[in-house]
Amino acid sequence: MDQMTLELTQALVSRRSITPDDAGCQTLIADRLKAIGFAIHHLPVGDVSNVLAIHGQSGPTLLFVGHTDVVPPGVESDWQSPPFTPSIRDGRLYGRGTADMKGSIAAFITACERIAPNQASLPFRIAILLTSDEEGPARDGIAQIAPQLTSYLSSVDYCLVGEPSSRNQLGDTIRVGRRGSLTATVTVAGKGGHVAYPEQVDNPAHRLSQFLGELADTTWDTGTDAFPPTSFQVTHLETDTHTSNMVPGSAIAQFNLRYSPALTHTDIIQRIETIAHRHIGDDQLSLIWHLSAKPFSSEPGALRTAITQAIQATCGIEVEANTAGGTSDGRFIAPLGAEVVELGPVNASIHQIDESIDIAELDQLSELYEATLHRLARLVRAPNQ
Amino acid sequence: MDQMTLELTQALVSRRSITPDDAGCQTLIADRLKAIGFAIHHLPVGDVSNVLAIHGQSGPTLLFVGHTDVVPPGVESDWQSPPFTPSIRDGRLYGRGTADMKGSIAAFITACERIAPNQASLPFRIAILLTSDEEGPARDGIAQIAPQLTSYLSSVDYCLVGEPSSRNQLGDTIRVGRRGSLTATVTVAGKGGHVAYPEQVDNPAHRLSQFLGELADTTWDTGTDAFPPTSFQVTHLETDTHTSNMVPGSAIAQFNLRYSPALTHTDIIQRIETIAHRHIGDDQLSLIWHLSAKPFSSEPGALRTAITQAIQATCGIEVEANTAGGTSDGRFIAPLGAEVVELGPVNASIHQIDESIDIAELDQLSELYEATLHRLARLVRAPNQ
Ligand SMILES: [Zn+2]
Ligand SMILES: [Zn+2]
Repeated sequence: MDQMTLELTQALVSRRSITPDDAGCQTLIADRLKAIGFAIHHLPVGDVSNVLAIHGQSGPTLLFVGHTDVVPPGVESDWQSPPFTPSIRDGRLYGRGTADMKGSIAAFITACERIAPNQASLPFRIAILLTSDEEGPARDGIAQIAPQLTSYLSSVDYCLVGEPSSRNQLGDTIRVGRRGSLTATVTVAGKGGHVAYPEQVDNPAHRLSQFLGELADTTWDTGTDAFPPTSFQVTHLETDTHTSNMVPGSAIAQFNLRYSPALTHTDIIQRIETIAHRHIGDDQLSLIWHLSAKPFSSEPGALRTAITQAIQATCGIEVEANTAGGTSDGRFIAPLGAEVVELGPVNASIHQIDESIDIAELDQLSELYEATLHRLARLVRAPNQ
Repeated sequence: MDQMTLELTQALVSRRSITPDDAGCQTLIADRLKAIGFAIHHLPVGDVSNVLAIHGQSGPTLLFVGHTDVVPPGVESDWQSPPFTPSIRDGRLYGRGTADMKGSIAAFITACERIAPNQASLPFRIAILLTSDEEGPARDGIAQIAPQLTSYLSSVDYCLVGEPSSRNQLGDTIRVGRRGSLTATVTVAGKGGHVAYPEQVDNPAHRLSQFLGELADTTWDTGTDAFPPTSFQVTHLETDTHTSNMVPGSAIAQFNLRYSPALTHTDIIQRIETIAHRHIGDDQLSLIWHLSAKPFSSEPGALRTAITQAIQATCGIEVEANTAGGTSDGRFIAPLGAEVVELGPVNASIHQIDESIDIAELDQLSELYEATLHRLARLVRAPNQ
């Protein structure tokens, strides 16, 4: 096979695109796509770069969604080779963003380049939407552009998100939805004072412990066919004093829930506030909620079928469809009515020191994306095959 | 009345004796006591000053215990007048140490000065033991000197501790014991990780909350005649991360128990370790114990009777004897077999900004100490009166 996907991945990884800095990735990509007939729309929001590339004017749309930004490298000297100097060792390409997700972007572009001579015969438009704000607050990226897509595309029917979905082997896992994410900061006010005068204090750490203890013991739901049970995790605890003879005046915790569409965030908030009031007085309780992401899921459709067949053909394995993992930009596309599926490389090294991707996997991913486009074309032409 | 007690208190308060610095207080006191016939023994330990003054060679001993050190003043500009410049306003003397406990020391010394002409007729020796390490670690003060007292005194029979015991009015409260104090630091190890992968984490904050929640719900004992029930207070909570999407790898708490002689510290440690193991695995639990003070209490004896009568005569009120409050140096004297009673001024302002004492209370306290010595003399001469 040629080195096109590897070389494009290297070119992207060598650009230090830490959120929200795109560092020229999207211009490089836009030039490649323009050369094969894509129309380019740069759609920056604040200091975030977004680019929408469209090939074809009519028909349903397959939208590839991805991000050019990467998480910070941590202590660069901890890396075996510098994080923004792509390096090959033992058949792997090392560098920040190789797996999450510059490799996927390169693989999809080279797939488009191979398809380009015949693209006119595809029964759908191909569009590509990339942002430099996925790893950060994710406010000025796909969240902002998704509602504007109807100005450029009559519909968004199929959405392929290139996030690294595979666990042990390329294609072993795709994601067909993501859980919602709800965070709360709870502050319990009490009455601090000297431990030797227990009748004069009201210890907020006691109330907080009892409240969190009950939350940790709670079964929220049993999940759904597509979703694992809702999970609750305390992420932070603190008190305002650190003296062994003083009762703190307040105690603070932060916690997060990942929840399925079996529950709404208002269900959860109501249940937790009921539990809170069992342990903490109204005037002592402050609960601040932040809904980071609502859950979404896609029913099985043509895209999932096409991907499943393509994985069987290209990788020779059966895929597992699940809804695990963190949040993804797919949540902003699903409300447009699109079938959203995430397919990308093995995620074992993402966000870590010495992030890397198997070079053979890069080529295989490009083939897999190409095969997916061909299978989808057949299914769109003859839906009952 | 003369101004002797006020003037001596002022002289002591103007010495900046923050633990362990005595700042010359004990030399000043030693000079005053030498003038009325006391033998002086300076017994420094490390950078702590201790002084033992003894009047008389035989008979039982009444030992007055006190400390010349004070707690730090905090932000000095928050004081209405500088903390080490004793200032009189509206009949009160303001300054760090006025109530805790330079006023008591001055009151006892002026009482001794008035008694001095007749001291030979008292049926007991008077000894005075002062340290500059009561407010600090309390390791090189009375704790070190108490075991050596038998080299200087044939016995210690009555111990009058001048700590500020009174609540609203001089003489309303004396202390006849103190609770023990036991502190623990608990560290729960877990497995941190991303909140989106609950099956890959083991949240130590959950286990810690459940453990502390149960401890906060526990009834340890119902107290004794002299002691209130044992109390438990969490003093600190923390986790090692503060990111809303990460489960911490460890969680830490500190807690303290004030306990009565109905329990031993080993009883408490065993009960808590049993509860801990219900919530936390052996290999995830670290509990570090620190016993700051064992409890002590004194049965009613001649000293308590003398003080009760003296309060009735001098203050016109009935005294309440209790064991509340923090720890005191009395715990080091009780094991010598002495009857230990604490009597001192109103403690409302101690350890605070604008600490102060009523000037009339200073004189009354000196009278009260003098009356106590006279009443005790009668009781020692004729125990059944
Ligand atoms: Zn990603
Ligand atoms: Zn004191």
